[in-house]
Amino acid sequence: MTEFRREPVVGQWVLVHTNDSLRPQDFKKEDQAPKSAEICQFCPGKEYFTPPEIEAIRDSQTQPNKNGWRVRVVANKFPALRIEGQLDPHQEGIYESSNGIGAHEVLIETPDHMKQLADLSVEETFNVIRKYHSRFLDLSKDKRFKYIVIFKNFGESAGASVEHAHSQIIALPMVPEYVLKEMEGTKEYFDQYKRCVFCDIIEQEYKDADRIVSENEDFVVFCPFVPRYAFECWIMPKKHSSDFASVSEQKQYSLAQILRETLFRLKTCLSNPSYNYYLHLAPVNDGHQQSFHWHIEIVPKLTNMTGFEWGTGFFVVKTDPKLAARYLRDVAV
Amino acid sequence: MTEFRREPVVGQWVLVHTNDSLRPQDFKKEDQAPKSAEICQFCPGKEYFTPPEIEAIRDSQTQPNKNGWRVRVVANKFPALRIEGQLDPHQEGIYESSNGIGAHEVLIETPDHMKQLADLSVEETFNVIRKYHSRFLDLSKDKRFKYIVIFKNFGESAGASVEHAHSQIIALPMVPEYVLKEMEGTKEYFDQYKRCVFCDIIEQEYKDADRIVSENEDFVVFCPFVPRYAFECWIMPKKHSSDFASVSEQKQYSLAQILRETLFRLKTCLSNPSYNYYLHLAPVNDGHQQSFHWHIEIVPKLTNMTGFEWGTGFFVVKTDPKLAARYLRDVAV
Repeated sequence: MTEFRREPVVGQWVLVHTNDSLRPQDFKKEDQAPKSAEICQFCPGKEYFTPPEIEAIRDSQTQPNKNGWRVRVVANKFPALRIEGQLDPHQEGIYESSNGIGAHEVLIETPDHMKQLADLSVEETFNVIRKYHSRFLDLSKDKRFKYIVIFKNFGESAGASVEHAHSQIIALPMVPEYVLKEMEGTKEYFDQYKRCVFCDIIEQEYKDADRIVSENEDFVVFCPFVPRYAFECWIMPKKHSSDFASVSEQKQYSLAQILRETLFRLKTCLSNPSYNYYLHLAPVNDGHQQSFHWHIEIVPKLTNMTGFEWGTGFFVVKTDPKLAARYLRDVAV
Repeated sequence: MTEFRREPVVGQWVLVHTNDSLRPQDFKKEDQAPKSAEICQFCPGKEYFTPPEIEAIRDSQTQPNKNGWRVRVVANKFPALRIEGQLDPHQEGIYESSNGIGAHEVLIETPDHMKQLADLSVEETFNVIRKYHSRFLDLSKDKRFKYIVIFKNFGESAGASVEHAHSQIIALPMVPEYVLKEMEGTKEYFDQYKRCVFCDIIEQEYKDADRIVSENEDFVVFCPFVPRYAFECWIMPKKHSSDFASVSEQKQYSLAQILRETLFRLKTCLSNPSYNYYLHLAPVNDGHQQSFHWHIEIVPKLTNMTGFEWGTGFFVVKTDPKLAARYLRDVAV
């Protein structure tokens, strides 16, 4: 049996399998454990293979672009966007077109090739979050950029082409259509109800209770009522927070704690699946909006998109989120 | 080097790799040849495994639900939607929700387990198209349905769970958000320019010429200037046609000819990749719109979606469509 569901931010419809849900063991297994560090350009001692360091957290007395780092941010060697040059927007007949200007950085999360992000300590994860934050602040200063995407692809099915644990940061000269819709939806809801839609989502999650996975002082993790993927998890600041730039060090530490725990739950429950996550943040420079509420969405890649989903934008979710949350809660951490 | 591109229908931005395009041999190979018919429920002689036939093209003197068919349409045994019952829309706090009512059918394209759609003759492909058309007409009569999706998932990466060649047909009680946007975009363009945006796209494709793959009397195939995937192909009626219901038998035959040829080009050029296709059709019953122009979009699954694409809706296309078109044109048919 299935149920149509629609969420109140962008009006996304999904179809959720409610009483014939797939369980963790019903999905194809694909353990994404790292295999070999032999030819890895992200490993310590191979710093000369990457473009120069933009930022790093290093042991004292160590030199940039040498061994001794804990987290390292470099420009992407094969960037989707180039930092130099002009956008030069122009029409090509009925199409708009412009040069691929922007920033594309790689954040290497640990020197240890054999560790995944889910294996790191809270302190090590905190280093990753601190660098997300400082790169966000730094890239925001470039007035050409309107949107900064911080994301992670883990495992082949999630589009990762390099095995060594890393995240990516892309700064775009325009606000993507999807983000605009999210901003519009948030603003419309605010204008109508004078409340933040994500604060109301959290309130409903606490009331319904059965989709909540875990929480700490600052963040709550739940499987949303309207997910796009089975076992999708959202990490959300409990208190309204529109601006990622203003997140304190203490809250970054708290985020590291809950992110690490959530990734560990997913890894254990779903046999180390591929996943993507991305920080849903408000646009930078002229686009910031107080009614937005930043958060992280984690989507494990357990199934492949079908022609139905492509043709309609309508997702079919094969596990009821309340069942997914129960499985994730049951993981001993 | 990359280029931002935006298409004029829904305003989708993509990022196209223009001078460091991936070639067919640069993508991971995954030959999706059928392997075994041993336990296949779609094979002749196993008709009792499926729900009863809704329609079929059969040899004369053969009985429904027995051997002797060429194409067979049955209800999906594990449907995403049920045909009986009421929608019963209701609020669950801030969410909308309703029962999963609709139709979900499977069209078995050939009795031969070892053949793919790309291997069929024009006559055999014509049988498939004829059944697309007649199921569309029949399902349109049910006033509960607002949108009919006809699609195909081929290969595991495209979400196919059954190997035997088949398509799927889903009738929905609402028009999906993506389709609404496509309709709105088409209508806005028409209101502004008094022309169909897809007719203008075709005109531009003929003018630029280098993205055209092939054509026949009624249809043109091209790799669109703003694709979402590498080697994406669109099959479009050359003359404005808003209504799939009114497509003549002669044009259905013509479509079979060009669909078969296009699938053969993709199979040959890209070593038999997984793919999805879906018919972009106007809504049925009260939602039909004269300014729409129906077409088929085929997306080979050569790469996996990344967190960047998830987080922004912004696709990164690793092959310039004019290069893709050249490779596809070069296939001897």
